[in-house]
Amino acid sequence: MRQSQLFTKPTKETPKDEVSINAQLLIRGGFIDKLMAGVYSILPLGFLVIKKIENIIREEMIAIGGQEVFLPSLHPKANWEQTGRWETYKDLYKAKENSKEYAFGPTHEEIIAPLAKKFISSYRDIPIYLFQIQNKFRKELRAKSGLLRGREFLMKDLYSFHIDEADLDSYYQRAQKAYFNIFNRCGIGDKTYLTFASGGTFSKYSHEFQTLTPAGEDIIFICGKCRVAVNREISEDAKHVCPECGSKELREEKAVEVGNIFKLGTRFSEPFDLYVLNERGDKKSVLMGCYGIGLQRLMGTIVEIYHDENGIIWPEQVAPFKIHLIPLAPRAGLAGKDKKISGQILEKTAKIYEDLQSNKIEVLYDDREGESAGEKFADADLIGIPYRAVVSEKTIAKNCVEIKKRSEDKIELIKISETISNLKTQISKPQLKAKI
Amino acid sequence: MRQSQLFTKPTKETPKDEVSINAQLLIRGGFIDKLMAGVYSILPLGFLVIKKIENIIREEMIAIGGQEVFLPSLHPKANWEQTGRWETYKDLYKAKENSKEYAFGPTHEEIIAPLAKKFISSYRDIPIYLFQIQNKFRKELRAKSGLLRGREFLMKDLYSFHIDEADLDSYYQRAQKAYFNIFNRCGIGDKTYLTFASGGTFSKYSHEFQTLTPAGEDIIFICGKCRVAVNREISEDAKHVCPECGSKELREEKAVEVGNIFKLGTRFSEPFDLYVLNERGDKKSVLMGCYGIGLQRLMGTIVEIYHDENGIIWPEQVAPFKIHLIPLAPRAGLAGKDKKISGQILEKTAKIYEDLQSNKIEVLYDDREGESAGEKFADADLIGIPYRAVVSEKTIAKNCVEIKKRSEDKIELIKISETISNLKTQISKPQLKAKI
Repeated sequence: MRQSQLFTKPTKETPKDEVSINAQLLIRGGFIDKLMAGVYSILPLGFLVIKKIENIIREEMIAIGGQEVFLPSLHPKANWEQTGRWETYKDLYKAKENSKEYAFGPTHEEIIAPLAKKFISSYRDIPIYLFQIQNKFRKELRAKSGLLRGREFLMKDLYSFHIDEADLDSYYQRAQKAYFNIFNRCGIGDKTYLTFASGGTFSKYSHEFQTLTPAGEDIIFICGKCRVAVNREISEDAKHVCPECGSKELREEKAVEVGNIFKLGTRFSEPFDLYVLNERGDKKSVLMGCYGIGLQRLMGTIVEIYHDENGIIWPEQVAPFKIHLIPLAPRAGLAGKDKKISGQILEKTAKIYEDLQSNKIEVLYDDREGESAGEKFADADLIGIPYRAVVSEKTIAKNCVEIKKRSEDKIELIKISETISNLKTQISKPQLKAKI
Repeated sequence: MRQSQLFTKPTKETPKDEVSINAQLLIRGGFIDKLMAGVYSILPLGFLVIKKIENIIREEMIAIGGQEVFLPSLHPKANWEQTGRWETYKDLYKAKENSKEYAFGPTHEEIIAPLAKKFISSYRDIPIYLFQIQNKFRKELRAKSGLLRGREFLMKDLYSFHIDEADLDSYYQRAQKAYFNIFNRCGIGDKTYLTFASGGTFSKYSHEFQTLTPAGEDIIFICGKCRVAVNREISEDAKHVCPECGSKELREEKAVEVGNIFKLGTRFSEPFDLYVLNERGDKKSVLMGCYGIGLQRLMGTIVEIYHDENGIIWPEQVAPFKIHLIPLAPRAGLAGKDKKISGQILEKTAKIYEDLQSNKIEVLYDDREGESAGEKFADADLIGIPYRAVVSEKTIAKNCVEIKKRSEDKIELIKISETISNLKTQISKPQLKAKI
């Protein structure tokens, strides 16, 4: 798209009320706007990132058999009373309408279990896996970490339904793999640890996916021998021993929880009388698992990991655009030679823009007039698109475009005629390891 | 997808608490589930339809310059006090957190106007067009028409920002065209009328898009001369005369409002001090327009228009799948000749299923065992996928598949080898007029 038409404008000013790097950079770059503590608007650039993340998550959920639904946010009080959580779930937003009371969904066990009961009655009807990507609402006193902790946020929640523990266990393993696929594709896989956390009555542990960053609010202990960690909240109980391999060599790190998975057992199926008849005709309570990922938190975590002092450095698969195309034409209003050169530069750039678009390479075209080269480069670094392509008097003299990766200092001149094929080769690679 | 794995099962039972045809059929087919009056879960089949509708809307909004955002549902009380609507907007759900109060967004003028102020200061910054597709919450006493009137519903709302009336007027016309594109693509264009409705302080009229159906809660008067209508709420004021051509030949019809567009003028820009400096440096209040479409209501309206006594008849562009593939194999457990034939039928069908999938033709494969031919056909008619492809002993004897459109009685035999090319030709056509 043409940057002159973009709703937002990058700014050098750091928002005064934000202490977190993710919110500072995302606000300065025009990805999000803060409405109030823990509540953010997603702006056009941010929306493109969220859609990329959403699609990655959706693909991985469908790959493990997930069927997508969209459940209401407005919940009847009765459903929450049925599980006893109307009083005990402290973060619940409640509203009244006439004499009736409603909750605004912070999670959806109270809705999905009675829904499942309508379609599940025989062992033949399960396993079944349902997921949604949808807004959640949670009262949250600690909303100070930008996108890492919100009062309203998009969440993917998957719920699974099983005949027995063996089946739940096996799906729980598949979900773990799908989660690592998601975090790998979002570029944070190598910093993300499967972390033992507190379980419930059904299971000793739940599991979190914790990504190492100084911005994290959680403390985890990483096993030096195997690739798992233990959340501080249970490390005392676990006697500072790795639950996986028994090693005592654990090192402390700060981390942010980017996902969690939980064996619910019958905690939510029993209150709603969700059972099936097994092969012998016996009633069996259905076992459930739940699997969550917060989308804004994931976006914020990516920014915490991928940034430098100049701005964001988006991993390619979640970047709002692949290429930032920047013409450096002498300022408008000049006459003579400068005017002619300026015209040539803009003409070449417009042609490259068209070619990129017709080749379906996502491009942000900085067609703004009046900004200096320095301003354009600073804005490009802040926004953090993976490749920068510059067209200037110097480059067109050689019939070239200057290509630079946001993550590297190296600048390379590429023939204009080879720009598309060159970029296509680069950006088709899934990782950021490609060399230009 | 394989129907045996689908979460929902079609049912003959009409839900007792639903009087509307759209909700009855959508619930029976497994598209939606009712959580409470005016609040529905969207189930896997319904989700596929909603995504189709969403994509059509998104494409048309981007085509008229719309930039997509996602605004919070949780609104600070202050924003609603600023416009005076905290007290006057009767349908507002409100919640408390500590000493603070919040609204759950029934619409987003109170959020978008102050957001726009952060990025708009010069006449050069506008026009700008922002839209979102997102949940709305409205207290609603009359929630009895299924999806036609909800208390929680997905809505596309677009907001436009202009320097003067001429620019607003011109965009308002573009938006009208985009709306008709949407309704045409959803199959209800020829039953949908641009309808004059009450305006506000800024504009005498707003416009609704009203679709004729006996299920409609609105009464409109259609001009016999030009293709517009007048809502009953203003027909008295309009003195029963067409505001477009002056004709007095108006005929009364029942209709449902599937979209509306409204010139807001400065109603929401002034409370938030949203202005720009014009070319002469004078302060000018920004003019706004807003443009809404309810997604579930649109889905419900499509069902009201496209159904018969056996079920839904989805227009192709919004259908959950294009083909319903149904093998009619003799029941399992049989021996000898029947077993052999059954195996052949299932083998041929599985091959066709694979071919359809690898050709990216969306297919629901009725691989359920135990259902009779009659049950499978009844379920297919209820779900309403545009094409039904049957493989049976009779058809494989001729090396054929039997194709029937849901909207027609005609049955045609197509060579198995030609099924894909035949269907590809049919379903690539945008309208339902193609003959098999």
